[in-house]
Amino acid sequence: MRSGDPSKRTLGAMPPTVVVVGAGFGGLRIARALARAPVQVLLLDRNNYHLFQPLLYQIATAGLEAEQIAKPVRAILRGQRNLEFRMVDVTGADLAARRLETSGGPVPYDYLVLAPGGETNFFGLEGVQRHGLGLKDIPDAVSIRNHILTCFEQAMLEPDGERRRARLTFVVVGGGPTGVEMAGALSELIRLVLVKDYPRLNIKDVRVLLLEATDRLLAAMPEKLREAAGATLWRKHVDVRFGATVADYDGQSVRLKSGEVVPAHTLIWAAGARAASLSARLGLPTARQGRIAVTATLQVPDYPEISVIGDAAYLEIGGEPLPMVAPVAMQMADAVAANIRAAVQGTGRMAPFRYRDPGTLATIGRNAAVAHVWGLQFRGFLAWVMWLVVHIIQLIGFRNKLFVLLNWAWDYFVYERAARLITRS
Amino acid sequence: MRSGDPSKRTLGAMPPTVVVVGAGFGGLRIARALARAPVQVLLLDRNNYHLFQPLLYQIATAGLEAEQIAKPVRAILRGQRNLEFRMVDVTGADLAARRLETSGGPVPYDYLVLAPGGETNFFGLEGVQRHGLGLKDIPDAVSIRNHILTCFEQAMLEPDGERRRARLTFVVVGGGPTGVEMAGALSELIRLVLVKDYPRLNIKDVRVLLLEATDRLLAAMPEKLREAAGATLWRKHVDVRFGATVADYDGQSVRLKSGEVVPAHTLIWAAGARAASLSARLGLPTARQGRIAVTATLQVPDYPEISVIGDAAYLEIGGEPLPMVAPVAMQMADAVAANIRAAVQGTGRMAPFRYRDPGTLATIGRNAAVAHVWGLQFRGFLAWVMWLVVHIIQLIGFRNKLFVLLNWAWDYFVYERAARLITRS
Repeated sequence: MRSGDPSKRTLGAMPPTVVVVGAGFGGLRIARALARAPVQVLLLDRNNYHLFQPLLYQIATAGLEAEQIAKPVRAILRGQRNLEFRMVDVTGADLAARRLETSGGPVPYDYLVLAPGGETNFFGLEGVQRHGLGLKDIPDAVSIRNHILTCFEQAMLEPDGERRRARLTFVVVGGGPTGVEMAGALSELIRLVLVKDYPRLNIKDVRVLLLEATDRLLAAMPEKLREAAGATLWRKHVDVRFGATVADYDGQSVRLKSGEVVPAHTLIWAAGARAASLSARLGLPTARQGRIAVTATLQVPDYPEISVIGDAAYLEIGGEPLPMVAPVAMQMADAVAANIRAAVQGTGRMAPFRYRDPGTLATIGRNAAVAHVWGLQFRGFLAWVMWLVVHIIQLIGFRNKLFVLLNWAWDYFVYERAARLITRS
Repeated sequence: MRSGDPSKRTLGAMPPTVVVVGAGFGGLRIARALARAPVQVLLLDRNNYHLFQPLLYQIATAGLEAEQIAKPVRAILRGQRNLEFRMVDVTGADLAARRLETSGGPVPYDYLVLAPGGETNFFGLEGVQRHGLGLKDIPDAVSIRNHILTCFEQAMLEPDGERRRARLTFVVVGGGPTGVEMAGALSELIRLVLVKDYPRLNIKDVRVLLLEATDRLLAAMPEKLREAAGATLWRKHVDVRFGATVADYDGQSVRLKSGEVVPAHTLIWAAGARAASLSARLGLPTARQGRIAVTATLQVPDYPEISVIGDAAYLEIGGEPLPMVAPVAMQMADAVAANIRAAVQGTGRMAPFRYRDPGTLATIGRNAAVAHVWGLQFRGFLAWVMWLVVHIIQLIGFRNKLFVLLNWAWDYFVYERAARLITRS
């Protein structure tokens, strides 16, 4: 690291301060990894909770309650003595002076770890941004749930067949894991649960469409699993359309690039992510998707005391940018924690980041998932059980694990979704 | 009933339609009570769920999750063949033509049962209405939870002692059951849970005040229990002030009629209820608290086909108006259901309503409650267990009972409140 390195402080001085921005998978992991390091950790987030994003689509489809997949940061890190948490927005920075500006005043740092995560990327489609529904945080997910259920209530009051079908047409855009899981869960919510709520509903009026611009779902998966996923969605009555690129949306109908128009009151946008808009506020240059280009050691060029991890970090490995997924964020957190420890203790050199891909899983509904792990391929019931186990293990907190498991068991056996409330504020 | 009575229809005609407005305790009860009557029941509510209001203060204090004390109306009444539910707002009526106007179009009725419930009564105090927090539905309760937790987060960032104490002063207004339960639960949330989250917090900076305009808490209770409630609140560090009438509130400080000013960023208003604002929209005359005066048989004078039940009905028994509580609503529902059945079947006369007071319970926190039932008085641990049992029994749905009980057990043994998330939208 450059001269003026905090590791060169004299004995007896205050330990250096590591400021971590963001309490997602990466931020939380590095905050914990530094628990025994001779540093003060200051963790900042604009929310007071850590969110288990992979299950967000289950909030949106009334399967889980928000509190079950989120946990207050202060509760998670209660026992850690060298840590302080502040709920603030980061508004700017003076990087030369090593100081962040926040809604709670200035925050000086010796080391800065940026882990702000990602946000929905609408690719400049204003109509979609205004009328479509993203799925990145709890309010997003609750909005989708409220919206879907309201569409059904309103459809029951709609005498006109055309307009009723538009209210009951649900378009999910994006054939990645989020879009596939969302479309599958939505179709099951409708066909296993809502049909019982609406005995007068003609199920033929309901459509769930999954639009994908390319010719494949779950592009990161091997071909066999991609095909299995498509076949399962088809069995679950999800209408998958390939080569379908959205051009515009006005809240009433979706216009595709091909000129086709699909009347639909619901468009759920799962077609893109980009880094959270923090980088611009900090005056750091960005690469693709608003991400900040980092060195092989995850440092920002010219500012070696600043590291970036997770969705906001842009790093190519083997010519491909690393995907915006939780395992990348967590492994980066471990790497940066090791580098900071080495720097502070004056013992080590920065090690370049190496990513070990743990594989990918995607569930499509009851008893159905695809998994590509340890180089092996699984699908159907076995993959589904693997998905369940992996997600329960990764959820933070025994209480959350217990309640999610109970919820899943309940819904599995009685074909229910208990959280189907329309909570307007 | 008067001429043109639907009970005089000829055989083979459509069964008469009973429209019930509101799916609270009263509306839900009468909808179910008419399950086997030869009528069509049409239940209207602006929400799609039934809410167990007595536990709302536990949402506000992060003890329970909203989904655990609410259940979709369609799920509750799924098996009932003669029932239809519509999620609509009632906007007006043509009472002479026996037709309601709703956001989902006109709704004709033969019998109309109004069960719209109550809303917060701010008694014309505009400042309190704008800056204070009511506690009548789920969004209210979630707002209180978000607000309380945000006050703590902001207090941590506030260097000025005066301003920090104002952020940590929580004023609850009204010494009835809602105010007492809210103040007790809030003080426990702070002293048992939040102190662990905020190790830098000076607990002397925190105050919970309960303001009561008269000289007694829980006015409906016998004197011994009122005193026990006061002593318990005192032990739980709630500062109870009698003879304290709020004159104004600007979001920063509460001004009392005495001229005293209390700097406080939080004012929770539990000092009054009135009937939901439906009566004005229907053009029906109202008595006190916006309630509709009814005959001894719970009918509206001049409109015998319209009944009113619950908080919205004004009826004096023994010179006192009936209280706005769930047991009144449910017993009224049974009475009106019997009267409608008798009228439809042409068998009976309208029976006057008689209220059997089942007693009252109020909990103040861990192991502490007061109960006045069957003419007997209970307090302390025994009353608390009675309170738990009564509330679990009355909660609708086995799933809700199970999850609430698990939540309570968890929080009781590990001193936790899991739902302390700030969910901004």
